[in-house]
Amino acid sequence: MKMKAPRGTVDLLPEQTVKWQYVENVLREICKTFNYEEIRTPVFEHTEVFQRGVGDTTDIVQKEMYTFDDRGGRSITLRPEGTAGVVRAYIEHKLYGSPIQPTKLFYFSQLFRYERPQQGRMRQLNQFGVEVLGSADPSVDAEVIALAMTAYKKVGLKNIKLVINSLGDTESRNAHREALIKHFTPHMDELCADCNSRLTKNPLRILDCKTDMDHPAMKNAPSVLDYLNDESKEYFTKVKTYLDALDIAYEVDPTLVRGLDYYNHTAFEIMSEAEGFGAITTLLGGGRYNGLAEQLGGPSTPGIGFGMGLERLQLALEAEKITLPIKKELDVFFVTIGDVQKETVQLIQQLRTNGLRVDKDYQERKIKAQFKAADRLRANFVVILGEEELEKNVVNVRSMETGDQIEVPIDQLVETMKTKCGGEK
Amino acid sequence: MKMKAPRGTVDLLPEQTVKWQYVENVLREICKTFNYEEIRTPVFEHTEVFQRGVGDTTDIVQKEMYTFDDRGGRSITLRPEGTAGVVRAYIEHKLYGSPIQPTKLFYFSQLFRYERPQQGRMRQLNQFGVEVLGSADPSVDAEVIALAMTAYKKVGLKNIKLVINSLGDTESRNAHREALIKHFTPHMDELCADCNSRLTKNPLRILDCKTDMDHPAMKNAPSVLDYLNDESKEYFTKVKTYLDALDIAYEVDPTLVRGLDYYNHTAFEIMSEAEGFGAITTLLGGGRYNGLAEQLGGPSTPGIGFGMGLERLQLALEAEKITLPIKKELDVFFVTIGDVQKETVQLIQQLRTNGLRVDKDYQERKIKAQFKAADRLRANFVVILGEEELEKNVVNVRSMETGDQIEVPIDQLVETMKTKCGGEK
Repeated sequence: MKMKAPRGTVDLLPEQTVKWQYVENVLREICKTFNYEEIRTPVFEHTEVFQRGVGDTTDIVQKEMYTFDDRGGRSITLRPEGTAGVVRAYIEHKLYGSPIQPTKLFYFSQLFRYERPQQGRMRQLNQFGVEVLGSADPSVDAEVIALAMTAYKKVGLKNIKLVINSLGDTESRNAHREALIKHFTPHMDELCADCNSRLTKNPLRILDCKTDMDHPAMKNAPSVLDYLNDESKEYFTKVKTYLDALDIAYEVDPTLVRGLDYYNHTAFEIMSEAEGFGAITTLLGGGRYNGLAEQLGGPSTPGIGFGMGLERLQLALEAEKITLPIKKELDVFFVTIGDVQKETVQLIQQLRTNGLRVDKDYQERKIKAQFKAADRLRANFVVILGEEELEKNVVNVRSMETGDQIEVPIDQLVETMKTKCGGEK
Repeated sequence: MKMKAPRGTVDLLPEQTVKWQYVENVLREICKTFNYEEIRTPVFEHTEVFQRGVGDTTDIVQKEMYTFDDRGGRSITLRPEGTAGVVRAYIEHKLYGSPIQPTKLFYFSQLFRYERPQQGRMRQLNQFGVEVLGSADPSVDAEVIALAMTAYKKVGLKNIKLVINSLGDTESRNAHREALIKHFTPHMDELCADCNSRLTKNPLRILDCKTDMDHPAMKNAPSVLDYLNDESKEYFTKVKTYLDALDIAYEVDPTLVRGLDYYNHTAFEIMSEAEGFGAITTLLGGGRYNGLAEQLGGPSTPGIGFGMGLERLQLALEAEKITLPIKKELDVFFVTIGDVQKETVQLIQQLRTNGLRVDKDYQERKIKAQFKAADRLRANFVVILGEEELEKNVVNVRSMETGDQIEVPIDQLVETMKTKCGGEK
């Protein structure tokens, strides 16, 4: 019998995790410079958090959630997206009461969506995201976009495209909604069942339909940008002015509506344009969600955020053939001869405590095989310790690059290796 | 309506996450020096992985798992412990075939157990763990223990105790098992229903029973150490010799059996002895599990590992009143006067790109309130930019520590602040 990881999930093995660690460190460093702080919320929430926070009419809530009753009979759901849980926590812990405002948060979260697995679409996926709560300043919209663009640039991505749109405030959204209903009503018998149910519940969703995307009525559907009131127009203009000031190129796409119900004003996506990236090109999606906190039982609070897919980021790095600057080598490998194990583990522990990366043989291999292991682990130095050396209280240190070998008194080994390997790492 | 995190789960807010980040960085650095590499497995597995990998007779599998059918009707379970998934991945990806052996892995995982929540016992908990597969060398047992002790020491814990035991190999375990059955059989009507069912399935579990822990038959139960065969005794002696060589103090406790079915030979726990730590004192538990890989459908492979509770580590830090060396301050806060927002976001982006931690006001606050915000964010410097300064192409830089203020040409701001704040962070 062979056991496998569940369909749609993957294991990240050491050759992958070093790349993930690198990207995560870059993101953490950027968050630090942008003054965003980390929040961690539970992997699952009460199902209601997503029903109310993501929207009952979305595909996510209707079809893709991992929902089950716990042993106490409560309905819980593995989080399918990152924002609702963060906003729930923001309200529960009354972060809106802090004198430091807005609240600028980031997170690394696993998300879970029951979809048909394919390249770039997994059932367990990893997302980095930011959320800014408590400011309706358009410079925040530009800041979160700048944070994302800074990150992509830092890891080396070149072929990416930023697309933005405005969904406007409630008044604008309602005007657009009426126009959509008027526009699509004559075509309802040609559109899918989902679209029929969307027409009254949330007609904006029709524009996002994967089944009917090629229907002619989609092409000339009323553009949201034509229904923005003056305030919404001005807001959008300011966001664009800031992006221009930051030298961030963007395209305005009035059909960009995002898959979640809670967005208003600014919506944005970043896509990969790398050749061979695959059919799903969205690397990141986000937008403003003034009103979401209220919907989750909190005070009226403006908010904005994005979710960056980390699997797709790795795929984009591959598509652009970017080699991350990852150094994987060992400082010291111990080759031992005879009964010197006790002294070996002592010396190794001393070197490790001083920040050196050290390993040894654990298989009672012969000397030649031990050197081979040192080679495979890309050791810079080999320390040779045999019973003979032990008697003389010395070890032999060999450089694997030059082959040069020197004898070092045991009590000077730590200092010698610290010097050779550049001291504390 | 107020929404809360599910019972037994918590949100980690920024004041906590900085402490978690610190500890995780320490652990990652130590893993690097010990040459352990990271693996990440999915949050859930096919339920069978835990039934076979943890053991059908354990409390975990019988009472505490979050098990549910996914939308495709497969039984999946949120991982209740860290080892089974890692071993499943080790087998699935044939890591035993790598020329580099043993395979030394570490992980950070969320675990899920449906228990009655209390201090130090959550339904979602976080664990750091290591697993070494492919070596039956007793120096590995000492190494994983040394890794844990090095980590606790590095974060500053002093009041901890290492307890070790040996459960022996299969022959020894069987001999002990027979002795346990013989010993407990006359007392079965005085012991709980669980213990009655454990008697034939896995009598070792009786020693772990929370209900019957005070029954007199527990006190004089046959000690596993009296049933070790010569090979097992020698193995245990070697482990102790290595621990002595590493100057790691330990207590041998023959009643230590650990809550999982798969252990043999070395078992160990590290406890907090800090005053006021609470009733549950185990910080870490681990042991050798030769044979587990076979049970999960892989080749016969020796293995050993431990799981370190990260919530309990934080509780231990609190109990010992340890202040982690965390620096939380801002390099620069921008105070702006009048219509200078476009230039401000440009300058901020330049400073951030150069590694400085920079923020500004997003609330259209008055000058005095902006200075207050700078203070609250512990800014080292304030950059003052008004329309007047902008006209002269300068900004004013004020040290928040000394109050000294200097005028700096805008195009020299980045270099000036890099010098003042110590350049790239």
